[in-house]
Amino acid sequence: MNRRGLMLVICAPSGTGKSTLIKRLREEFPRISFSISYTTRAPRAGERNGVDYHFVSMENFRSLAAEGFFAEWAEVHGNCYGTPKQAIIDLLEEGQDILFDIDVQGAAQLRENMEEGCYVFLFPPSMAALRQRLENRNTDDDKTIRRRIENAPGEIAQSDQFDYWIVNDDLDYAYRLLKSVYLAEGTRPCYMPGLPKWIMHRKIDA
Amino acid sequence: MNRRGLMLVICAPSGTGKSTLIKRLREEFPRISFSISYTTRAPRAGERNGVDYHFVSMENFRSLAAEGFFAEWAEVHGNCYGTPKQAIIDLLEEGQDILFDIDVQGAAQLRENMEEGCYVFLFPPSMAALRQRLENRNTDDDKTIRRRIENAPGEIAQSDQFDYWIVNDDLDYAYRLLKSVYLAEGTRPCYMPGLPKWIMHRKIDA
Repeated sequence: MNRRGLMLVICAPSGTGKSTLIKRLREEFPRISFSISYTTRAPRAGERNGVDYHFVSMENFRSLAAEGFFAEWAEVHGNCYGTPKQAIIDLLEEGQDILFDIDVQGAAQLRENMEEGCYVFLFPPSMAALRQRLENRNTDDDKTIRRRIENAPGEIAQSDQFDYWIVNDDLDYAYRLLKSVYLAEGTRPCYMPGLPKWIMHRKIDA
Repeated sequence: MNRRGLMLVICAPSGTGKSTLIKRLREEFPRISFSISYTTRAPRAGERNGVDYHFVSMENFRSLAAEGFFAEWAEVHGNCYGTPKQAIIDLLEEGQDILFDIDVQGAAQLRENMEEGCYVFLFPPSMAALRQRLENRNTDDDKTIRRRIENAPGEIAQSDQFDYWIVNDDLDYAYRLLKSVYLAEGTRPCYMPGLPKWIMHRKIDA
């Protein structure tokens, strides 16, 4: 019996703790893979083509996008980034689970272009807590923090497009819920085609 | 924010290990309740009306059934058993999670009469394993074992009506998956009405 892989799509306003939760999930489940994106930006030192990204020219990217090659794509600060649709489908058919750490617009495109997947939205416990976390982590300047806080309500407003809602109030509990979503979702019949037949078949073998 | 309770409905062919899994789930999550069924059978020693069952006459039961009082009901060996629909709805509205340990026909009725719930089907690892477990547990005579084994394929054939499929090959892993389904399902938006508004509201409070 071939198990189908599942797409686990995770979105959250910046400062919710998404990266920490994803890091823990990947450490506990190294079988989860990421898809390799296409990008028009130049490779950074140490980045390898086909491993970290597929590096392509803007001209190439635009023609791929026009052909419907991408399950989702976006332009960020003048560079394009895209997720190749067929490569994802191939991985899922091999039984590979794939995680998408993506923004709400990307998630909306994925949902429209793929007919599967499990969409998780992470909430901060409150807007006040979000602001505090962004200020405490000392990685962003004031302008960036202000922009991230201003963006959050718009992102949260799109949360009703998601299948699961997790409030990251307590990190351990939020992780427990995220892990549960991943494990539970994998037991849906759509990922186990032919299970009843397989059980019956083993009756004949016995 | 009022969380809505969830209905967790668990079905399995006899001998799959359902009772053991449910026992573990209730021990870890004492907050999960059972609904109190109505029955026409006589109380056994120590059973209290309104606590173990609501004991009613056959005449009463039939008229309640005719009024649509039950979310599901069945006649077993001449006695009737039924789950009161409004009592369940009231518990769910109070935020109570309710577990249903029920047969596939009961689950089908529940699904038709309630517009919510999470339906889990447990599979034995194989028909041969099922037979072995029924024989090993020494609780049933040969005729009962034969009937249970004969019933299993028909029950398994109805598994495609369920939301989650768990194969009880390894008890600890099956329990982990069942627990994940329970926890994950509780993070669905339908159980957390108004969460985005609540997060926003706390912005104003801050």
